[in-house]
Amino acid sequence: MCGIFGVSAPRMSSVLEDLYLGLYALQHRGQESAGIAWLDGKGNLELQKGMGLVHACLNQEELAKERTKCAIGHVRYSTAGESNIINAQPLHATYSKGQIAVAHNGNITNARALKRDLESRGAIFQSTTDTEVILHLMAHEQSLSPIDALVKSLSKLRGAFSIIAIIEGRLVAARDPWGFRPLVIGKRDDVYYVASESCALDIVNADFVRDVAPGEIVIIEEGKLESLNMPVKAERHFRCSFEYVYLARPDSVIDDKSVYDVRLKLGQRLACTCPCSEGELVLGMPDSGTIGALGYASKSKLPFEMAVVKNRYVGRTFIQPTQRVRSLGVQIKLNPIKGLIKGKSIVVVDDSIVRGTTSKMAVKFLRDAGAMRVHLRIASPPVKFPCLYGIDTPTSSDLAAAKMDVEALRDYVGADSLCFLDVSDLVCSVGLPEEELCTACFSGLYLKE
Amino acid sequence: MCGIFGVSAPRMSSVLEDLYLGLYALQHRGQESAGIAWLDGKGNLELQKGMGLVHACLNQEELAKERTKCAIGHVRYSTAGESNIINAQPLHATYSKGQIAVAHNGNITNARALKRDLESRGAIFQSTTDTEVILHLMAHEQSLSPIDALVKSLSKLRGAFSIIAIIEGRLVAARDPWGFRPLVIGKRDDVYYVASESCALDIVNADFVRDVAPGEIVIIEEGKLESLNMPVKAERHFRCSFEYVYLARPDSVIDDKSVYDVRLKLGQRLACTCPCSEGELVLGMPDSGTIGALGYASKSKLPFEMAVVKNRYVGRTFIQPTQRVRSLGVQIKLNPIKGLIKGKSIVVVDDSIVRGTTSKMAVKFLRDAGAMRVHLRIASPPVKFPCLYGIDTPTSSDLAAAKMDVEALRDYVGADSLCFLDVSDLVCSVGLPEEELCTACFSGLYLKE
Amino acid sequence: MCGIFGVSAPRMSSVLEDLYLGLYALQHRGQESAGIAWLDGKGNLELQKGMGLVHACLNQEELAKERTKCAIGHVRYSTAGESNIINAQPLHATYSKGQIAVAHNGNITNARALKRDLESRGAIFQSTTDTEVILHLMAHEQSLSPIDALVKSLSKLRGAFSIIAIIEGRLVAARDPWGFRPLVIGKRDDVYYVASESCALDIVNADFVRDVAPGEIVIIEEGKLESLNMPVKAERHFRCSFEYVYLARPDSVIDDKSVYDVRLKLGQRLACTCPCSEGELVLGMPDSGTIGALGYASKSKLPFEMAVVKNRYVGRTFIQPTQRVRSLGVQIKLNPIKGLIKGKSIVVVDDSIVRGTTSKMAVKFLRDAGAMRVHLRIASPPVKFPCLYGIDTPTSSDLAAAKMDVEALRDYVGADSLCFLDVSDLVCSVGLPEEELCTACFSGLYLKE
Amino acid sequence: MCGIFGVSAPRMSSVLEDLYLGLYALQHRGQESAGIAWLDGKGNLELQKGMGLVHACLNQEELAKERTKCAIGHVRYSTAGESNIINAQPLHATYSKGQIAVAHNGNITNARALKRDLESRGAIFQSTTDTEVILHLMAHEQSLSPIDALVKSLSKLRGAFSIIAIIEGRLVAARDPWGFRPLVIGKRDDVYYVASESCALDIVNADFVRDVAPGEIVIIEEGKLESLNMPVKAERHFRCSFEYVYLARPDSVIDDKSVYDVRLKLGQRLACTCPCSEGELVLGMPDSGTIGALGYASKSKLPFEMAVVKNRYVGRTFIQPTQRVRSLGVQIKLNPIKGLIKGKSIVVVDDSIVRGTTSKMAVKFLRDAGAMRVHLRIASPPVKFPCLYGIDTPTSSDLAAAKMDVEALRDYVGADSLCFLDVSDLVCSVGLPEEELCTACFSGLYLKE
Repeated sequence: MCGIFGVSAPRMSSVLEDLYLGLYALQHRGQESAGIAWLDGKGNLELQKGMGLVHACLNQEELAKERTKCAIGHVRYSTAGESNIINAQPLHATYSKGQIAVAHNGNITNARALKRDLESRGAIFQSTTDTEVILHLMAHEQSLSPIDALVKSLSKLRGAFSIIAIIEGRLVAARDPWGFRPLVIGKRDDVYYVASESCALDIVNADFVRDVAPGEIVIIEEGKLESLNMPVKAERHFRCSFEYVYLARPDSVIDDKSVYDVRLKLGQRLACTCPCSEGELVLGMPDSGTIGALGYASKSKLPFEMAVVKNRYVGRTFIQPTQRVRSLGVQIKLNPIKGLIKGKSIVVVDDSIVRGTTSKMAVKFLRDAGAMRVHLRIASPPVKFPCLYGIDTPTSSDLAAAKMDVEALRDYVGADSLCFLDVSDLVCSVGLPEEELCTACFSGLYLKE
Repeated sequence: MCGIFGVSAPRMSSVLEDLYLGLYALQHRGQESAGIAWLDGKGNLELQKGMGLVHACLNQEELAKERTKCAIGHVRYSTAGESNIINAQPLHATYSKGQIAVAHNGNITNARALKRDLESRGAIFQSTTDTEVILHLMAHEQSLSPIDALVKSLSKLRGAFSIIAIIEGRLVAARDPWGFRPLVIGKRDDVYYVASESCALDIVNADFVRDVAPGEIVIIEEGKLESLNMPVKAERHFRCSFEYVYLARPDSVIDDKSVYDVRLKLGQRLACTCPCSEGELVLGMPDSGTIGALGYASKSKLPFEMAVVKNRYVGRTFIQPTQRVRSLGVQIKLNPIKGLIKGKSIVVVDDSIVRGTTSKMAVKFLRDAGAMRVHLRIASPPVKFPCLYGIDTPTSSDLAAAKMDVEALRDYVGADSLCFLDVSDLVCSVGLPEEELCTACFSGLYLKE
Repeated sequence: MCGIFGVSAPRMSSVLEDLYLGLYALQHRGQESAGIAWLDGKGNLELQKGMGLVHACLNQEELAKERTKCAIGHVRYSTAGESNIINAQPLHATYSKGQIAVAHNGNITNARALKRDLESRGAIFQSTTDTEVILHLMAHEQSLSPIDALVKSLSKLRGAFSIIAIIEGRLVAARDPWGFRPLVIGKRDDVYYVASESCALDIVNADFVRDVAPGEIVIIEEGKLESLNMPVKAERHFRCSFEYVYLARPDSVIDDKSVYDVRLKLGQRLACTCPCSEGELVLGMPDSGTIGALGYASKSKLPFEMAVVKNRYVGRTFIQPTQRVRSLGVQIKLNPIKGLIKGKSIVVVDDSIVRGTTSKMAVKFLRDAGAMRVHLRIASPPVKFPCLYGIDTPTSSDLAAAKMDVEALRDYVGADSLCFLDVSDLVCSVGLPEEELCTACFSGLYLKE
Repeated sequence: MCGIFGVSAPRMSSVLEDLYLGLYALQHRGQESAGIAWLDGKGNLELQKGMGLVHACLNQEELAKERTKCAIGHVRYSTAGESNIINAQPLHATYSKGQIAVAHNGNITNARALKRDLESRGAIFQSTTDTEVILHLMAHEQSLSPIDALVKSLSKLRGAFSIIAIIEGRLVAARDPWGFRPLVIGKRDDVYYVASESCALDIVNADFVRDVAPGEIVIIEEGKLESLNMPVKAERHFRCSFEYVYLARPDSVIDDKSVYDVRLKLGQRLACTCPCSEGELVLGMPDSGTIGALGYASKSKLPFEMAVVKNRYVGRTFIQPTQRVRSLGVQIKLNPIKGLIKGKSIVVVDDSIVRGTTSKMAVKFLRDAGAMRVHLRIASPPVKFPCLYGIDTPTSSDLAAAKMDVEALRDYVGADSLCFLDVSDLVCSVGLPEEELCTACFSGLYLKE
């Protein structure tokens, strides 16, 4: 998971602050590092990056003073063992055809083989990102123009990638032929924006234009947008269903489907397939289960209550994980309204179960608050398979639903009942044809290589 | 508005981290400064304070290592012109009877007269807090024991005060005879806690014992709690109704009334007294209007949607108020789900209208998102009078409802309709007798002096 | 030890930055905290203070924008057990006659008795500074004007104090009748400055006017300087000789005597009274022994070399005192030029011996660098008595020269020979009459009370 | 200018703190960025780098806990336009033969040509450092072992380079065949150290073993040191003379010559060739002119005085360059002892004149302090040519002595007389044969390519 954001203006403009805001709107997609690259007035690439949240990496006040025609930015999600400034993006390089900057969201499944091949031709890798592979592939296409080299290089990649780049002074955006990760185009006056999610267009007041199509390469310059297609054709699409379930912000629209709307439908469908006759109250685990709970409640005609309150200052006032804090657990962040819960049969909706530890804590936490019975309802199918396409799910051995059946899992989390959606419910709720959607983490149906 | 928290253990214990967590749970009551005072092993008072949020002022890791029998803490709300470290609390002083530390929530209405009198007797004031008045009054009662001096001093005060203090090594808590500001007692094993709100007891896993009664002085030492009464008797109580409307956390229980429950009832009653026949959708302004909206929706049978999404990183990734950011306005923080709103008649619930500017922005913001009609419903009466008892409301000239009638205000905020609760609805929803509740900011009925 | 600095301009001027620079020039007098107080355009006192070096406590950029007619500042030296923001100065208070701010350098020997008396009259002490005593004394003189109250209050004090204050909008400076601590007046155009040392006048390009005389109170307003005398007359003066030996900057002139010049003479006299026939090389311990070594070398005709180099980044790149760092000791900061030292008989000059540990390390350090013989020469008499007048010397039990005679001390520090100046040499080198100089830490001759 | 430091221990040891201290001792060689790379217990390379001083980039406390067998570090000097984290060293890469980390001091004169060639073979450059060229050259020698690839790669370089690297888990150090930049080997017990200057060996208590010879490659592993020679033979050496004049710390010994000793001799020779009959006093500009002044004074029998005092807190308490600060100029940092200077003919010694602005300010500054006449003596020849070998001198158009003859320069700086050493004096003072020394910045005699 990462977030990318780009901007192209027909003349030197104060749009770097929009880049800052766009990355801020995408902060939920990555908190490990942030960075931006932009063209200065002389056509040189400038770079700012650092570890941590957007405000810690980038200097908004300085950016507000700068002007540019083209800029890209990136927020990076922390994945184990590789947390280092050398992996912060965008990557930037000089090669035989000039300067280039690239930022990337996704996971390239044949990266290792490509790296080995490139290394045998003399390439050195200074990061552990897949992004660097793209740069090397381009540089080894000496006879092609930079854009042609990009097209050819992307054609060699398998797996998930949405990228934005500055190439020859132009903003370039591309999405893999399978459409794994989202990528949208927006416009405000004559300024174009490209973003991982539409919520980042909203914050800069840009109008949504359209999604970048799977396999499409978009080139923006001087207020004009040109579109190319990658030569590789996908047999089917693999748009990530987990974006709708958990990753994306509810106020985003991905491939024409409102994330909020999908989550509401998931909750409604859950009410149909996993009813709870003795339920007296529906609540969602903050924040990810709330919309599903709303859907469940409206469909089941059970009352919905915001019976678990999240401390507004979580994340702002830093709490060290000392022994005392660990012993207190989740109540540092969440507090139940005991008066609502006490003595009742509660239906708790959450978006998904990955490791199972959070659900276990949630159930205990509600019982401690006096719940008589706790019925856990999950607004997605069991996650049984690792994601190969850029989401930081654990390996199978750490996926609760890969190790236990539903009854064992219910026992493990301590709920009175536990019920999941099945994959077809998920597909229906998203509203895209099954062959357009990646459900690999639920179904094990991966892209064939 | 401020938050106070105290702890008393029968023996030297690692309870300073609880103090840290308690203040963190009360952070919504004050963000300007934070401070703590505690007794070290030799009976001396130690002090830590600073400007900003709890984590910026206090060193959790160091506090986790310290031990104490008695400690108090304070978070301070920023009020114009007096933002300075010298006003950070607790205040601490040495006087003829030894050391004392005091923290205070409220506003003493006769402070100016008391200060003038004290100054004429040689007192110097090093802060602009009311708290310092209490210290001086005590110091001028040379013939009395510290506790007796406190009782006598508090008897001279008019207005709102909930205080905690360390006096002669004991934790002392007191609430003014009118009961303006809340104050609760909790217990965990043999450790006593005192807090502005019950949510701060929850975070440290303490059981709620009871509210401190109006006019009560509680003295805790060696695991024992003793109760005194101030000689001043109040003719009636003035428990702050605005705590239920806006200030307190919804997961707190104040004077036996659940804040969540009151807000839900305010919303339900609003649905009865201010129905909206053409409403298609109910939404609450995050975060303060949400529970009221939930009540409104359930009562009116209109669908409730979380149609305005708040960026989870607001407050964490700092956004400078540059020209561009100001031009974008509230959408930096909030994003509407356009698909839900477009073309619809929307009922928006907010907790209150003070200056009116927020409501005006909210209405515009929803119209920009495509709302056909915007009906604003306020889950409290119009705020027409300034608070004299510790809440930072503006003077009458800046209170929208003091300058305009409802129709003029509707026009100003740009809503299609605007409707408030009246004071009797508020009183009913809280559930306390009218003569127990302060509604001065709505009704102008102040404590007679 | 502390440093104070004040400025008075006839009209609202940008002189707060001068205050910043003046405190920066006095930083050697105190590194624990810094603070300033100034009059704003409406005649109100503003305050900024914090813990640490000047740049960490004060915001130069903001100060550069402010204007004032009168301002004072303070840097505080850390003394054991009282390191806390509540002791940072200037102190500021409101009392019956208005607002006042005071900063103070020195130690009032009858402070405890005065505090006890004030407490019995109802005073509360919020800091452990002597400065607060002055504020209370003034506030208890209700019938007098503020300036008269100051005069009367200062008359009650015994011991060392140089103070600056803002009283009734005027800059007031005073020096105790014995003249313990230095205080100088400077002027630049029509702006007056008052400072602990003349080096702080130099940095703001002010001309030295004169020292404040012992027992003098100076009042500056609207570009005019008025002088009063305290009613208390001193039988003799007690100007601190240790300022010349160690405390003051060499570029300062105190009571008409150049500190550099005094240190050079101390070194020259040391060459006469403590010659070293076998010495091949003279070096000074950086930084405090260097000038004395220069004097010693010139007089003894021995070559002077800067044979110990101090890392220029000491204090900038912070080194944690880990186990490894402690094992390396003083060589983290200092490095000898081995080529100069190896096989030679070295004369090392230092300014003084207090605890003896530094000298012991210095001798070992030079032996490790290959010195054949190390002859230690101290450019002052043995420190045998604690300072009661504001210098943070340890109690007698930690003063090396109070516990051992010179031979024992030589053995303890490991030198081949050790020789001190005697008190009469010190007096001669300073050039002030013996009855004008405090030599209490060397001679035990304290002010009689 | 940069500083490099490496360490190799025969077993996992706590030597990363030594690396921290070594870089701290080399901080004068670069303040823009700092970084380290080390082998963890599994043989993987770990990396820490950042912008600013050593303590801002590296976490000493964490490093004190880590263990390693091999580590290298780097401090980087700021050169215009390239200040960015991507240029912070060591560089680290993965290539076909494994992982490698390199840090580098110097300037490779054929870097541009080498880059162009590498780019034509598909290389991408992610920094603007010469160091990256070395990595690419190695990676393109697919058939050779890493060490052989390094030897062959270094053989292709022209210009100045001292490098340290971690290759195949071994510490490798190399110095170009001309010996431009210094590099020394030290040892402490069975731990080897390599450093830019010997002062960095002193701080970790390591014994100086020897200089790395020009053209030598040293490989250290398991406590054993192996030495190779580069196939390229230099016709003559070009050891940098400016290291002795200004760059290196005086407590370092470079190529068997003590820097302190050379500076003293430069001053003595200056006294012979540029005497000043009317001089009454010799002083050095802090800090770089002091030792030369000492030599001048001892030879000329004129008194030496430390008549200009540097504020000890320069660099610690940060002073913003506001308008007021700029108007005050150098006196923010330096203060003359007016009593010594007033009315006298002063001989001022400085190490060199580059742009001439500092000298101009120094002369004015002394005249303002009352000097009757100011005679400027420079302990090196005029700098007339840019350095191509790694020192950040300006282009000829900004070199004062390239634009003016000595008389014009004297007039420009405002001195009563001005005199330089000539190149032969410099050579003699260093004590190395002329054909061993680079004097290009003075003489224009560059390495022929």
